[in-house]
Amino acid sequence: MGSRELPLLTVLNQLGDGALPPVAGVRVIDDVHAPAWDRASEADIVLTAPRNAWRGAPAERPPGWPGRVRWVHLASAGIDYFPPWLFDGPKVTCARGVAADPIADFVFGTLLDHVQHLGERQVQHLLGWRREFDRAVARPMGLLKGRTLGLVGYGAIGQAVARRAQAFGMQVLALRRTPQPETGDGVRFSPDIEHLLARSDHLVLAAPITPQTRHLINARSLAHAKPGLHLINIARGGLVDHDALRDALDLGLVGHASLDVTEPEPPPLDHWLYRHPRVTLTPHISWAAGDVQRASVQKFQSNLGRFLTAQPLHDLVDLSRGY
Amino acid sequence: MGSRELPLLTVLNQLGDGALPPVAGVRVIDDVHAPAWDRASEADIVLTAPRNAWRGAPAERPPGWPGRVRWVHLASAGIDYFPPWLFDGPKVTCARGVAADPIADFVFGTLLDHVQHLGERQVQHLLGWRREFDRAVARPMGLLKGRTLGLVGYGAIGQAVARRAQAFGMQVLALRRTPQPETGDGVRFSPDIEHLLARSDHLVLAAPITPQTRHLINARSLAHAKPGLHLINIARGGLVDHDALRDALDLGLVGHASLDVTEPEPPPLDHWLYRHPRVTLTPHISWAAGDVQRASVQKFQSNLGRFLTAQPLHDLVDLSRGY
Repeated sequence: MGSRELPLLTVLNQLGDGALPPVAGVRVIDDVHAPAWDRASEADIVLTAPRNAWRGAPAERPPGWPGRVRWVHLASAGIDYFPPWLFDGPKVTCARGVAADPIADFVFGTLLDHVQHLGERQVQHLLGWRREFDRAVARPMGLLKGRTLGLVGYGAIGQAVARRAQAFGMQVLALRRTPQPETGDGVRFSPDIEHLLARSDHLVLAAPITPQTRHLINARSLAHAKPGLHLINIARGGLVDHDALRDALDLGLVGHASLDVTEPEPPPLDHWLYRHPRVTLTPHISWAAGDVQRASVQKFQSNLGRFLTAQPLHDLVDLSRGY
Repeated sequence: MGSRELPLLTVLNQLGDGALPPVAGVRVIDDVHAPAWDRASEADIVLTAPRNAWRGAPAERPPGWPGRVRWVHLASAGIDYFPPWLFDGPKVTCARGVAADPIADFVFGTLLDHVQHLGERQVQHLLGWRREFDRAVARPMGLLKGRTLGLVGYGAIGQAVARRAQAFGMQVLALRRTPQPETGDGVRFSPDIEHLLARSDHLVLAAPITPQTRHLINARSLAHAKPGLHLINIARGGLVDHDALRDALDLGLVGHASLDVTEPEPPPLDHWLYRHPRVTLTPHISWAAGDVQRASVQKFQSNLGRFLTAQPLHDLVDLSRGY
């Protein structure tokens, strides 16, 4: 028996210098700035993320792509940041589920803030103590129990939100891409967005942006909203027709919108979203909790182990369904 | 067979005029202001709440008490507002569990506010959007998953908090009055307060105030606190030695205290609790959510049905254990 040596595999790492721990048999090129297609002749695997270089990607497949590249891993759940040609070549996987717990925690921080307004109830003097006590007695805070949480999307994020909602005693009603029988976990499914809007006290958008979901929340669907609806978007701004949302807020069809994502993003200077009294705007941060970078790298490492041992990759992007 | 007519029962209702819906065979006296013992000759049942008249109660049983009274229902979970002689006579029941869901929601509003600081992340202009985005990337929010939630007390409130905590992926560790084997619901039990303090990232006080629990959180036990501990008190201020808490906060032994209850309550003018940078103070409002008055009346009505049909009452106060 003689010894055998396989050629080194090379990973172009665009997550941050040193973000990828050493792996035997793998050479790592750290380069967060170069367009991935410019280094396609040097790397077998591209580990990348929604970065500025992708904003400047050409509309058509650039010469030299895919070169040596056989696998691209995107450190994001959504694929909308990347050009279409990226999905027509090497295998592409994504970070589906990595931020599900951070985002679900964020959704509940948002929900509870909306019904409790704890910030206003924190007191700094005796007068405030008495005033806020009297106010809470006269107008009690909202309770989540018995309210209906609507979910657009029932992937990893939707399921993480649903688990928490049920522990609070909420009813959970979800809308999926494909109609689905009851799952046995107490979550019920809506046949369409109008049905869901008519029954939800809090509606959480947790779906990818695809041609089917673009402007799902529009003037026609919002006309069915349960009065006082609280809309929470932690997915993609393009799910919402913001002009229609503005009208619905002004008419009182929608009670409040908590938007972590918008279209465009960020909203340009002086955009109405910055100052509408019924809008709470946060800067696309729902994913940023705990050690999300480490979780993302671990997801890649696990797939890298599968790639090295020629097993099928997890979390492949399926362009036909759009995520 | 002739018809029979039982004498009317009379309820002294001190919850608010008209708070108690009519019940056949029951006469209701609405009087929120009179000391209950002054009307003991007129009522069979007293439905009362922590009200000012009780603050003025004599230390010893007043003449005329219990008079005709055979049952007292307290519309509160704690019994510490009422004089000792009240528990040495007619049966006394309490509103145990009525506010468990409101209080557990409040605990999670408080927990998530502490780890997320959403109020500071809401943006009103483009500059704020970019600044808060960069801040969240550089210093991600806290995540509840994997953290340990400690519970002092595992009654209705503790269990409602535990259910929610588990849905967030937290570990739950509880301390009860009597040691207890594992319950099979994933909650583990601590042998003593030092053990619990040493392991808790967030410690929720949810126990009644009794001679055994008074100043359970003191200098000796706080010396065991896990660095950065977040203490949440939604039970009674007397569970905490506030001087010891102040030292622990100043020394950094405790990271933050979210106090809905204090001793004294409210803290007097210029008390340090109003301005300590590591204290969040709310005015004893955790119970005030949803239709808590209605839930409280329903609890009494259910027991009234049992009283009228001579069945044993639920939620009897047991003075030997202190709640």
